[in-house]
Amino acid sequence: MSEHTLSAAPTHSVWDRSLAPRLRIESGDEVQIECVDASGGQVRPGMTVAEYLSIDRTRIHALTGPIWVEGAEPGDALQIDVLSTRHSGWGWSSVIEGLGFLKDRFREPYLFHWTLDGEHTASLAPAVVPVRPFLGVMGVARAEDGSFRTRPPGPFGGNLDVRELCAGSTLYLPVYNAGALFSCGDGHAAQGDGEVCINGIECPLDATLRFRLHKNQPLAGPIIEASTKAAPDATADAWIVVETGTDLAAAARAATSRMVDLLVSRWGFREIHAYILCSVAMHLRLSQVVNEPVHTVSAAISKQILPVRELFAIP
Amino acid sequence: MSEHTLSAAPTHSVWDRSLAPRLRIESGDEVQIECVDASGGQVRPGMTVAEYLSIDRTRIHALTGPIWVEGAEPGDALQIDVLSTRHSGWGWSSVIEGLGFLKDRFREPYLFHWTLDGEHTASLAPAVVPVRPFLGVMGVARAEDGSFRTRPPGPFGGNLDVRELCAGSTLYLPVYNAGALFSCGDGHAAQGDGEVCINGIECPLDATLRFRLHKNQPLAGPIIEASTKAAPDATADAWIVVETGTDLAAAARAATSRMVDLLVSRWGFREIHAYILCSVAMHLRLSQVVNEPVHTVSAAISKQILPVRELFAIP
Repeated sequence: MSEHTLSAAPTHSVWDRSLAPRLRIESGDEVQIECVDASGGQVRPGMTVAEYLSIDRTRIHALTGPIWVEGAEPGDALQIDVLSTRHSGWGWSSVIEGLGFLKDRFREPYLFHWTLDGEHTASLAPAVVPVRPFLGVMGVARAEDGSFRTRPPGPFGGNLDVRELCAGSTLYLPVYNAGALFSCGDGHAAQGDGEVCINGIECPLDATLRFRLHKNQPLAGPIIEASTKAAPDATADAWIVVETGTDLAAAARAATSRMVDLLVSRWGFREIHAYILCSVAMHLRLSQVVNEPVHTVSAAISKQILPVRELFAIP
Repeated sequence: MSEHTLSAAPTHSVWDRSLAPRLRIESGDEVQIECVDASGGQVRPGMTVAEYLSIDRTRIHALTGPIWVEGAEPGDALQIDVLSTRHSGWGWSSVIEGLGFLKDRFREPYLFHWTLDGEHTASLAPAVVPVRPFLGVMGVARAEDGSFRTRPPGPFGGNLDVRELCAGSTLYLPVYNAGALFSCGDGHAAQGDGEVCINGIECPLDATLRFRLHKNQPLAGPIIEASTKAAPDATADAWIVVETGTDLAAAARAATSRMVDLLVSRWGFREIHAYILCSVAMHLRLSQVVNEPVHTVSAAISKQILPVRELFAIP
């Protein structure tokens, strides 16, 4: 096992499998990865909303990567353990005309600066919001040729905005290209399920990630093994299936069906029992409803109610 | 304050404001209310799936009530505190052709019997599901004349299937008729957000409820003050806005907008700050996706992040 560091610059803001890798690692390696905020460092403490409106939005989701994982091939699964995260004490949230879940109600642009301390921010009086950082974007290069903007997430991961991806959690992604080509960014110090105004608490967020390759383990989409030990508003530790689509009901249905498959394949439930268990103990959440044109639904089942299992046998 | 008891029979299975009240109470009174299971006692321990298929489904949601609250008038709000619940050690879940979120995948009828002990059920091996009982249906008579089946919930409450309505939580409902005419039933020993197979753990469930009337406090729909102190898989204590509609995205949007209104009116946030707070700390959940033709979305914000407030000033 080796430890690596990877600086943010030069960032990229598209998924494109022809991008040259900036780092090559082996399965099992750890990477200390520096991530600027989603704006690529354009938003600064004290910036006014007028200044904010003139930033270059083509740079949004300034990502760090890609990272080449030796031996990764299409049909493999890539495991990403989020070991730790480090914010810098500051973050921002904005409202922009034409974006957000209530865009017909909120049309005026706005920029809000948050002061973060280690565990809490008290900046939006009278609310005190727990800080629980995660990377809104973690993904691998898409299967298709071409250059794709990063707003819509997909089976490759990407702009999932699933708040359970904080330190202690693990993300499993399908591999579509040789080397996998992992990138990440879009740090959020906190975010609600839905991310309704278009932003979480956007912030620079360095992370230490550990990568492990599972050969010949095709996945239909992202799966999360969530741990929220350190979180003040902890969701229970959980297995989470993530689905993205233009239709919320269809995405929720696909997530449910994939959870049934997971319970059958990994825990040995009869299919009908897995379905009933989902009805009485699986929780459907709207992780984001603003990354147009697609929404992200998470289907979560507490680890407390199932025997301990590895998602993949460790070789 | 008086204490009352109300037996289940005769149950009713429609919302109809012309139903004669079975009990008259004053604001502040407590009622020990007996609720048979959703089938009205037709499903019994040991029943086979063949027998199950012949039950009279017009009796489903056999409800106890209506209860007349003296002085209640349209435009008032009715507060229902769930003080305690008592199951009988047994429950059931079923799959029926043509119903459920995965009805294209699961077509074979099935009936599963659960054995409940006080805190856990171990009946669906290898899963151990925490028992956390609540009434799937709590509602007041609808504003319209006529007799309405109970599957779809609405602004009057009804078949909300919001799992946070367990003991310790409070439901606030708008009043549409003189006396409010409250009824409840459809006990669930446990349920996931979504209730995907069409059932929770259906069970007989007696409850002790306390009612309080708030004059001239019109509500646009149900609000829940959730407490999950006693729950093994506790969701944080929370304020929850509940919206129901045929379109999931529209219901989620309406719930978000109502939460913004609540934060502005009760906590004094600027509207734009309330919106941003929702983006970073409010969680959108699919409470049920099977009560056709409508789905129910809950928007929850932890009570930990807000100063203590009453929803209504206590007179």
